[in-house]
Amino acid sequence: MPATHYFPSDRVHYTWDAGNEPVLTVESGDTVVVQTRDVCDNQITPDSAVDAVTQVDWDRVYPLAGPIAVGGARPGDTLAVEILDLHTLGWGWTAIFPGLGLLPDDFPEPYLRIFDLTTGDVTYLREDIAIPIEPFMGTMGVCPAGASQQAVMPPGIFGGNLDTRQLVRGAVLYLPVQLEGALFSCGDAHAAQGDGEVCVTGIEAPMYAALRFTVQEGRQLTAPQFMTSGPLTPRVDTAGFYGTMGVGPDLYVAAQDAVRAMVEHVSGVYGLSGKDAYVLASLVVDLKISEIVDAGEYIVSALLPLAVFRE
Amino acid sequence: MPATHYFPSDRVHYTWDAGNEPVLTVESGDTVVVQTRDVCDNQITPDSAVDAVTQVDWDRVYPLAGPIAVGGARPGDTLAVEILDLHTLGWGWTAIFPGLGLLPDDFPEPYLRIFDLTTGDVTYLREDIAIPIEPFMGTMGVCPAGASQQAVMPPGIFGGNLDTRQLVRGAVLYLPVQLEGALFSCGDAHAAQGDGEVCVTGIEAPMYAALRFTVQEGRQLTAPQFMTSGPLTPRVDTAGFYGTMGVGPDLYVAAQDAVRAMVEHVSGVYGLSGKDAYVLASLVVDLKISEIVDAGEYIVSALLPLAVFRE
Repeated sequence: MPATHYFPSDRVHYTWDAGNEPVLTVESGDTVVVQTRDVCDNQITPDSAVDAVTQVDWDRVYPLAGPIAVGGARPGDTLAVEILDLHTLGWGWTAIFPGLGLLPDDFPEPYLRIFDLTTGDVTYLREDIAIPIEPFMGTMGVCPAGASQQAVMPPGIFGGNLDTRQLVRGAVLYLPVQLEGALFSCGDAHAAQGDGEVCVTGIEAPMYAALRFTVQEGRQLTAPQFMTSGPLTPRVDTAGFYGTMGVGPDLYVAAQDAVRAMVEHVSGVYGLSGKDAYVLASLVVDLKISEIVDAGEYIVSALLPLAVFRE
Repeated sequence: MPATHYFPSDRVHYTWDAGNEPVLTVESGDTVVVQTRDVCDNQITPDSAVDAVTQVDWDRVYPLAGPIAVGGARPGDTLAVEILDLHTLGWGWTAIFPGLGLLPDDFPEPYLRIFDLTTGDVTYLREDIAIPIEPFMGTMGVCPAGASQQAVMPPGIFGGNLDTRQLVRGAVLYLPVQLEGALFSCGDAHAAQGDGEVCVTGIEAPMYAALRFTVQEGRQLTAPQFMTSGPLTPRVDTAGFYGTMGVGPDLYVAAQDAVRAMVEHVSGVYGLSGKDAYVLASLVVDLKISEIVDAGEYIVSALLPLAVFRE
């Protein structure tokens, strides 16, 4: 009979480390309920001002709930993680950290926005700009083999900081098990984020989650895979999209160009500051590779859902 | 009073060249009706076998309808191209060309699929795999300044071979005018394509189009932009999506890894040959940049709409 376990909220770890002892051991088929801290481990609060951004102690960033050992999981297996439920806990924040993000030279100064998440299915960047709340865990992974105080920020084939917005309630994430017991951890939840997470943060938020774990014996993956259960952007599909493009031989530079053009577009048309336009891009704009095959000149498109703009 | 013009179907050009004389001169606000040839200029027909792929004369690839001069358009202006209507002309093809595409080493042999486009809103890769027909012009652009027999395959800030699947009926493409009169051309239409066009072709198809041109004086863009009028994947949003990932410091390699994993997934789960799985990926799988900000390790996701699989 599958069991439901409640993960203790006072147990976190800040690096991937194969020596971390499992906090919880579950069987394949079991569900774990967890409340995760925001990515900065309570160093930013609903009352914070921008100086909180510059004062962050980076040794406390990425507090992960875990490890959770899953009985029977072995290297060469896949761990299926069903996202049964996710819910925000009333607030979140988005920041620009100097030196990070896709456009660090354009946005060298710190910036912080606090979001009230008690306003139904959307939260507001401005009274007429409604951002759909579509929560997911930014970080879900199994412990990398041989990891020793390995930083959480870079993701890997073990998963981790995937920041993949499609991993909402109803999705299933498949992770290649690296170590006996899988040693799953999660955290860094986002209440909203576009494909790309261009300013380096989504709406970073404490989160309630219910996750079900199943070991798929002998299913070998080379990187994470996932399945979603419905439309990808159901909440903003009603009003069309505005697209900007970057064209060139380097996809990273093309993405920068597309986002820079989007920031200018949003600032110019909707009267947002550059920083808020960059934040909006990080929260709702999706980066697509439109083509990657045309004689070495590629297209990255940034798509803004116009449904976020209200009368 | 805006006029409607009918572009002569026997007039094409094969390179961008500032010396090409306008075939048609229209006023801002006018509409042009055009029938474009397939990208290989009738060298592949509904009766072709795979040897047609290897025998293509590349000097005849990218026959573009144009140039169309738009009165009053000057460098520093934007040419808005409204896609009023698009419709296929009954058939199309998809090919793997050796040496081209995202995975040339995995797929070194030529391959050709002919599609019957008289089967309603979808066409069939296999009797149980239905591909939505969502036509767009792969190539729409204004003539680059100083262009002299410039190859069409690489796109640029002038537009051209954008291969951007969102440019369907109801969308508007904004192009930065490079030369007096703009000198717009189009062709290379696709009946279906995913973001990325990974095997190097969509469903290449002759196409009917009605396009309306408007000069936006003094609106300066650094690259093309566009607006869509509705949901991005309305025809396949019903059944969820399967995602594969590439993780790493190089977005191009990450895209290759994600597509390679998708080809393996599709082959394994649905029993398609590798080549057909690659073709399917080119026609319906969308490449997204999931994150581009996490300590130099980026995620490209390839998303397969499960609604293409029928009972």
